[in-house]
Amino acid sequence: MAVVRSDRRADPRSREAAGGARRPVPDRAHVRGLGTPGCRPGSVGTTGSRRADIPDLPSSPGQRPGSAHAARAAWRRHCRVRAPTDPGREPGGARRVSVVRLGRIGYINCYPVYGAIDRGVTPLAAELVTGTPSELNDLLAAGELDLSVVSAVEYARHARDYILLPDLAISCDGPVRSVALFSRRPVGQLDDRTVLLTASSRTAVDLLELLCRDVWNVRPRMAQARAEAADLDGLAHLPHEAVLVIGDAALLLAARHAYPHRYDLGEEWKRWTGLPFVFAIWAARRAADQRAARAVHHTLLAARDWGLAHLDLLAVAAARATGVGITDCRSYLAGLDYALTDRHLAGLTDFFRRLAARGLVPDGSLQFLQVA
Amino acid sequence: MAVVRSDRRADPRSREAAGGARRPVPDRAHVRGLGTPGCRPGSVGTTGSRRADIPDLPSSPGQRPGSAHAARAAWRRHCRVRAPTDPGREPGGARRVSVVRLGRIGYINCYPVYGAIDRGVTPLAAELVTGTPSELNDLLAAGELDLSVVSAVEYARHARDYILLPDLAISCDGPVRSVALFSRRPVGQLDDRTVLLTASSRTAVDLLELLCRDVWNVRPRMAQARAEAADLDGLAHLPHEAVLVIGDAALLLAARHAYPHRYDLGEEWKRWTGLPFVFAIWAARRAADQRAARAVHHTLLAARDWGLAHLDLLAVAAARATGVGITDCRSYLAGLDYALTDRHLAGLTDFFRRLAARGLVPDGSLQFLQVA
Repeated sequence: MAVVRSDRRADPRSREAAGGARRPVPDRAHVRGLGTPGCRPGSVGTTGSRRADIPDLPSSPGQRPGSAHAARAAWRRHCRVRAPTDPGREPGGARRVSVVRLGRIGYINCYPVYGAIDRGVTPLAAELVTGTPSELNDLLAAGELDLSVVSAVEYARHARDYILLPDLAISCDGPVRSVALFSRRPVGQLDDRTVLLTASSRTAVDLLELLCRDVWNVRPRMAQARAEAADLDGLAHLPHEAVLVIGDAALLLAARHAYPHRYDLGEEWKRWTGLPFVFAIWAARRAADQRAARAVHHTLLAARDWGLAHLDLLAVAAARATGVGITDCRSYLAGLDYALTDRHLAGLTDFFRRLAARGLVPDGSLQFLQVA
Repeated sequence: MAVVRSDRRADPRSREAAGGARRPVPDRAHVRGLGTPGCRPGSVGTTGSRRADIPDLPSSPGQRPGSAHAARAAWRRHCRVRAPTDPGREPGGARRVSVVRLGRIGYINCYPVYGAIDRGVTPLAAELVTGTPSELNDLLAAGELDLSVVSAVEYARHARDYILLPDLAISCDGPVRSVALFSRRPVGQLDDRTVLLTASSRTAVDLLELLCRDVWNVRPRMAQARAEAADLDGLAHLPHEAVLVIGDAALLLAARHAYPHRYDLGEEWKRWTGLPFVFAIWAARRAADQRAARAVHHTLLAARDWGLAHLDLLAVAAARATGVGITDCRSYLAGLDYALTDRHLAGLTDFFRRLAARGLVPDGSLQFLQVA
């Protein structure tokens, strides 16, 4: 059966090709799109040229955290973190070009931060790259991005190479709605049962593991699967007792009422610790140009202020992108928190502390980009 | 822009819902589809009820092997391999039901083995579960599948729990076409450049790492990404110098001629070692019912014999599913090898030996299901 699909829904990353480029970037002329020889990937330059009435970002695709053999993981880390040997390259980066690259998650939960940028309300002197959290995590680690919103846990894993952007995060103080375990049985009965893990997330997977081990006292069998919005129908046919889904896909799956049990991971964390939970932070590579990073940070804060003042408008765009109702989108976006204050930091460091106690991340501390 | 898409193309796993179920499976009534409350996931029972003219399987989605922290990976492995504690459960399995579950990769390279089963030519007394190689790997490890085609390297990682099905594999002796590194520069210049790795593969990723290290003498930065057929447009917008793609997506990407350099991993392996390369094998869990496993194995061999005698017909179905031309599909399928003879085993064990020397898999040996 052929069905009509929005192209942007099925593959949100491709949306950026529609953006206009103001700056010539001759050095990157060799970087071509997979399907469009000769064109640059993504929109480049200030996005002020974009129309204010363009539709917003849709849901997005993913990767995998677990199941790698230890030595393999070590080898990969080795590949990634070693200093570049080519003197003609930026320190810490694999690129020779000077355009700043900023990562963006393709879920609607990023609308309040990127909506003003997409509409040209807040011009951004950077190229945007859209991906799943997992994809952005890897691209920032590889030096392909200078700054990005990434899984919170990625900061703990790469604190030597990253610096946090102050006062900006995606967090919740109670239910988050878009990070949930959908289950066919009560969570206490998941011992030895199969839980599918979205390949798009890292922080949610780590949080789920902590909850299973320390709160629910169960040890399910974990299996990774593709679990973006476009994957939900296929996911139904993989055998499992529960599935961890994030982002727009989690909102859509909740609306289907296909599982008798749904555990909101923000809510579970709050019940356990009494603290807010920080799912995503913005980080810059330490090797990135600090002045440019500060400029991007300044833009992001201004864009967020605009976004939070225009949630009605963003909810309409979010509903169009996901198929979730406008009212639902509005209340979802309003329920998220985009600040990073001491309260949030208490939640973040408590999470890191628990992961470090399990040997899942190195011990460390938070370091922030210095801003005026 | 709205585009017309084949539903099965966009999400091949959901195809199985179309299959008829002959056997009642009352114990699994609690297992419901994500979008269709109350219905069972996948087609269940003998597939002899299927029409012989149904279209064949399309391309399929994925997961992630690398970048996991070592301790995390260890914890996951621990979760997966420990013996089930519930006495009411099958040993080694997380299910309470007796229907045998067989995994199938949703790429056209599985048509020659599953085509006869799909058409009811060779009745199969098992439930089929379709996924990417990575998804099937995890589901077999979790005990959700009894038998499956899996990434070859998975056997080496789970030899304690798995047993090989004799005389059946997906391999090549030279170019394979559907496992390729697409690159913007010669492979010798990928040092410190970003290579995107499909999240759907394990064996191809391991092979690429060996080639980078031991043959090409380069150490790229690896980043995982979604890279199934439906992801190709989005993938173009992630910054990278090269990308490893497998399955139908690799055939489609080759047809776009978007990269100046393309390295066929089957061909590279052959040039390096002079041996065939085995990409996928069929394995059964040791804990699975051996008589049922032998019956499934017998069916698979008969189905393969039918498939290899009907490549013209399968090529038409493959072309319809992928959009790749019939002639191309025909020559692609004809170029693959579905046997597992001493020649193939020489290639397989040489691959395992090289991985073990790097500490990437444990040392071990091959054990086969005993058949008449």
